[in-house]
Amino acid sequence: MKLMVINPNTTSSMTQQMAESCKRLIGPDVQLSVVNPTEGVASIQGRADGIAAAYYTLRLIEKADKEGVDGFVIACFDDTGLQAAREVASGPVLGIGESAMYAASVLGCRFSILTSTQRSVHILEENAANYGFSQRCEAVHALNIPVLDLHSDSSYKLALKRSREIVKQDKSECLVMGCGGMTHWQESLSKDLGMPVIDGVTVGLGLIESLVRMGLKTSKACTYGYPIK
Amino acid sequence: MKLMVINPNTTSSMTQQMAESCKRLIGPDVQLSVVNPTEGVASIQGRADGIAAAYYTLRLIEKADKEGVDGFVIACFDDTGLQAAREVASGPVLGIGESAMYAASVLGCRFSILTSTQRSVHILEENAANYGFSQRCEAVHALNIPVLDLHSDSSYKLALKRSREIVKQDKSECLVMGCGGMTHWQESLSKDLGMPVIDGVTVGLGLIESLVRMGLKTSKACTYGYPIK
Amino acid sequence: MKLMVINPNTTSSMTQQMAESCKRLIGPDVQLSVVNPTEGVASIQGRADGIAAAYYTLRLIEKADKEGVDGFVIACFDDTGLQAAREVASGPVLGIGESAMYAASVLGCRFSILTSTQRSVHILEENAANYGFSQRCEAVHALNIPVLDLHSDSSYKLALKRSREIVKQDKSECLVMGCGGMTHWQESLSKDLGMPVIDGVTVGLGLIESLVRMGLKTSKACTYGYPIK
Amino acid sequence: MKLMVINPNTTSSMTQQMAESCKRLIGPDVQLSVVNPTEGVASIQGRADGIAAAYYTLRLIEKADKEGVDGFVIACFDDTGLQAAREVASGPVLGIGESAMYAASVLGCRFSILTSTQRSVHILEENAANYGFSQRCEAVHALNIPVLDLHSDSSYKLALKRSREIVKQDKSECLVMGCGGMTHWQESLSKDLGMPVIDGVTVGLGLIESLVRMGLKTSKACTYGYPIK
Amino acid sequence: MKLMVINPNTTSSMTQQMAESCKRLIGPDVQLSVVNPTEGVASIQGRADGIAAAYYTLRLIEKADKEGVDGFVIACFDDTGLQAAREVASGPVLGIGESAMYAASVLGCRFSILTSTQRSVHILEENAANYGFSQRCEAVHALNIPVLDLHSDSSYKLALKRSREIVKQDKSECLVMGCGGMTHWQESLSKDLGMPVIDGVTVGLGLIESLVRMGLKTSKACTYGYPIK
Amino acid sequence: MKLMVINPNTTSSMTQQMAESCKRLIGPDVQLSVVNPTEGVASIQGRADGIAAAYYTLRLIEKADKEGVDGFVIACFDDTGLQAAREVASGPVLGIGESAMYAASVLGCRFSILTSTQRSVHILEENAANYGFSQRCEAVHALNIPVLDLHSDSSYKLALKRSREIVKQDKSECLVMGCGGMTHWQESLSKDLGMPVIDGVTVGLGLIESLVRMGLKTSKACTYGYPIK
Repeated sequence: MKLMVINPNTTSSMTQQMAESCKRLIGPDVQLSVVNPTEGVASIQGRADGIAAAYYTLRLIEKADKEGVDGFVIACFDDTGLQAAREVASGPVLGIGESAMYAASVLGCRFSILTSTQRSVHILEENAANYGFSQRCEAVHALNIPVLDLHSDSSYKLALKRSREIVKQDKSECLVMGCGGMTHWQESLSKDLGMPVIDGVTVGLGLIESLVRMGLKTSKACTYGYPIK
Repeated sequence: MKLMVINPNTTSSMTQQMAESCKRLIGPDVQLSVVNPTEGVASIQGRADGIAAAYYTLRLIEKADKEGVDGFVIACFDDTGLQAAREVASGPVLGIGESAMYAASVLGCRFSILTSTQRSVHILEENAANYGFSQRCEAVHALNIPVLDLHSDSSYKLALKRSREIVKQDKSECLVMGCGGMTHWQESLSKDLGMPVIDGVTVGLGLIESLVRMGLKTSKACTYGYPIK
Repeated sequence: MKLMVINPNTTSSMTQQMAESCKRLIGPDVQLSVVNPTEGVASIQGRADGIAAAYYTLRLIEKADKEGVDGFVIACFDDTGLQAAREVASGPVLGIGESAMYAASVLGCRFSILTSTQRSVHILEENAANYGFSQRCEAVHALNIPVLDLHSDSSYKLALKRSREIVKQDKSECLVMGCGGMTHWQESLSKDLGMPVIDGVTVGLGLIESLVRMGLKTSKACTYGYPIK
Repeated sequence: MKLMVINPNTTSSMTQQMAESCKRLIGPDVQLSVVNPTEGVASIQGRADGIAAAYYTLRLIEKADKEGVDGFVIACFDDTGLQAAREVASGPVLGIGESAMYAASVLGCRFSILTSTQRSVHILEENAANYGFSQRCEAVHALNIPVLDLHSDSSYKLALKRSREIVKQDKSECLVMGCGGMTHWQESLSKDLGMPVIDGVTVGLGLIESLVRMGLKTSKACTYGYPIK
Repeated sequence: MKLMVINPNTTSSMTQQMAESCKRLIGPDVQLSVVNPTEGVASIQGRADGIAAAYYTLRLIEKADKEGVDGFVIACFDDTGLQAAREVASGPVLGIGESAMYAASVLGCRFSILTSTQRSVHILEENAANYGFSQRCEAVHALNIPVLDLHSDSSYKLALKRSREIVKQDKSECLVMGCGGMTHWQESLSKDLGMPVIDGVTVGLGLIESLVRMGLKTSKACTYGYPIK
Repeated sequence: MKLMVINPNTTSSMTQQMAESCKRLIGPDVQLSVVNPTEGVASIQGRADGIAAAYYTLRLIEKADKEGVDGFVIACFDDTGLQAAREVASGPVLGIGESAMYAASVLGCRFSILTSTQRSVHILEENAANYGFSQRCEAVHALNIPVLDLHSDSSYKLALKRSREIVKQDKSECLVMGCGGMTHWQESLSKDLGMPVIDGVTVGLGLIESLVRMGLKTSKACTYGYPIK
């Protein structure tokens, strides 16, 4: 089985970090590539960035689909270009935002999302509504740390402090890390908070592997049919 | 990893059929039991049946949780007792209705459900609304064949005919089989319809395996805490 | 006219208290029994408790229906087993949660609910959504006093203090007491707060009496048809 | 106890018919007046009519409130001026549309409304949404007979025919008669259809009697406070 | 092109103030009248006031429609009698509440409303829901200054202070002034807050002018057909 | 005042047709450009096409914003890249889908949309939900004629026939033409159907002109702030 995780921005250090998180999860029969487009934007902060990132990500998926990749994960929490990607791919495509919200919704009765910057809050709220998770998603909060600064120790400390406040205020039962650049915090944050903390990158990979294993593919019936050339 | 699929009714032939569908899916490190309670109801037709079935199913889960089962699938499309089961279990618990609707929602932009009898329609509509899938679930239809008669060839023919009508009328892009007793139809129905057909039993098993593999557990923070004795 | 109020837990002191509240309300032609099952759980804290309580409550209703009881009130604010009970009974069946929310929705434009423990909050939110009262129900709050400790004077003082905070914060115009064990507070809490305070037990009884008096019965058309043996 | 049912249009024959339906329901301690304003419109067909009717209905309620009437029913299915009436009255005020939808929602899992003319359909849909009954109200249909022609035998035959079609098509489990001028059909329509048929006039009267008996009044906390002169 | 802005209350000083705001906006070919009914209420505080105001406003519109007025703006933020007015007029009719919410929804991703008194809050929330702006409208707040006292300097200072708090707390991106009597604050409040501040009176006038210029009229197909005499 | 209407696909004949419709509408002080990107897709059929079109459309807007264009209309009914465009522009930006749905929602109580192909239906349903028009938009229908074939006479005849069926079936009170390539049908379709028919291109232009005239701009407070380079 060939799977692909795509970081839609061009920052390869972030892609590498995702690859670290992913590699301990996959089954022995899975060939996994974790990649990013070489053109587009260094980080996705808002919807204009999202369109540039999606434009180049679709090219990657189109090519990989022809090379026989069986399933895809779009590893930006905004789920940049997710529905468009389903038109381009034959196999299933998941976004890490959608995957994390789904997992959170089955593990606790309500969850909160902690994302990097305020600018993404409305995008995630709109996504939650479109996926049907509005009633489960108590609130989306911003850490107010830019995506590319999330790797530092001091960022983790701030994130933990903020998470504790959020969980108390929202009475949330799961915390969703709302950015692909937070994947390395999952284990410690979960331990420190004492409740499930969801990382979309690994959850998305786990879910796509299981969908592919069951032989499920994207429906080509109409909306997600291949683009008409 | 120990997983358990529970058919909440007492009809062991149906349990066996589910075991058949499940066994070709699991990884080499998975110990799977497919079981049913020995007390309760022979089939679940309505909410009163559902409460009796849930009562005995919870006992099974309680016991299995102590014996170290890591994750559970409740294999009735009504998701009988699902949230209560999350209180009783440490590991994650999925219902086949919820799992199938999730899978359908990521493979196509809208789906229809074909269940066995009209009596279940309102239950499934209410579940779809509670899970957040109302916008994706175009309609729930009844085949009007009792659960325990679904194994016959003539039932399949009727189901295929009805599915074709439904897909046309609803413009649905995935069909969800809305009963645990339809699991053996998945492959042929999918081929005959030419679109993804979702069987909750196998999808639920695939998803629970992936959640357990990621180390995710039910949040014990509040709502799904263990029952207070 | 024969009416039955059922406390679904096994604590008969609570049942007695409900009987006290009920007896001053009924018309001269009403034969009222206020009862509880003898098996099940001492108090309902969460959904697993709810299923055990519902299981035994349904047996009581089934028997009473055969003995000619004309209408039923399920006197747990979670409305444990309410829809299932409608399958079993010929006459109308009301839950006290549903009844209280309805009354609150016609007396003021928005209400708050004060329940006993945090664990019930999600259940009540989900019920409010399913009954259609989400827009009217500003919030559900927990007093954080276990059901069986609600009878004490100090509990009342805490409840009054908390109610005042809630009304101010939520700008609510009615307060709904979200637990069958609070029925004895209705009069004083209403006077102390200076606004309508709704007790589901007495409201449920009043509403069921009026539905029965009009000759209305549960529809047996499909979903609430009698269970199929 | 003093109760008042107000037909908000000026057609006294319709008021008389309502009085007929009401008189067999009330308790021995109830003084009931069934009245209509003498100015306004002969029938309410649309929202402009509704405002004229409400304007004069509010004057009636204001006067009756001073004379000690304890509870009010607004007997037009549009619930003309309902929320405004709650500002003017001390006691509770119910509309027949709201009351009928509530009753239908507890007797079956979904209902349909049959109103007189197409023009009222959007008003009733908007009311159903505002009351929270959108999920329960499958559809609103028009008989296409003007309100003042509903008394004839041929109208009943048309109504029965249309009701049978509606129930089949909508899979509804209760039928709500969506006009105050249909009150005399309740018994025969219910028998002929074999399912609960709800008449808002009698249901509204029954419910208001029970709310008044419990000592409940309109909240004067804010929104429904008395008008500021 | 003849346009009419109607202040539905009888306070002509407020009407004059609106006329001031309007006059700098209209095209050279627009004949604008800004009027109020001479009977009704001095200010609209609640729904009973609203019905009296609407009653007399409809008479004004009826007359103006015959005299060839091409489009109408109802200049009370409650949009008093808006849908009824559409029955009476041939041309398009807009409310200032509806117009302001629309404009806010296209200029920022979420907005807050600041209205005069708490009593209007529920009306505006209900309107926002009916227009479909619930997800965009973060909250409705009351300044707690009666409509007729809004002209003073101290009122402006209070409004500015409250607006700053609201914008911070709600993370709103536009502020909507929720009362026709605030129209003179638009320019300074917008400058002082540093974000779009929406005044329904001028926005409503701009929008109605553009609808009339395009030749669009109210649909007389059914719901908004002329009243039947 | 400088306004720009952008056809986001590369088909300049379609752009020209839009320019025709627009030119009779604008005020004497308006400088209007109607343009299309030269790279991207010839027509937008689905979301992958939409991302390519949006990518090049954003470049156009970015450039025009620097050159002092005061307001923008994105003239594809999918509102391709609309929210992203609001980040890039200082002035207001409207989509033709959003504009047409708004206009329809104030002219009648419910509308239907007729779009070109089935593939766009889900996109428009999702947009209607996100804009808040789900309750007003009865249904989205496809004419099943590709965008680039809409100019022929036979297409108009089909569209008229289909529109008549839709209006009858949906009981819609306005018809919305759900494609920028239908703009030339507005006048005749409106006359032939006898009800308002909404063309998003001209409505969008009228609305943007009025917003700009009032001095309103896109909020740069957070979500629609300029992209961070």
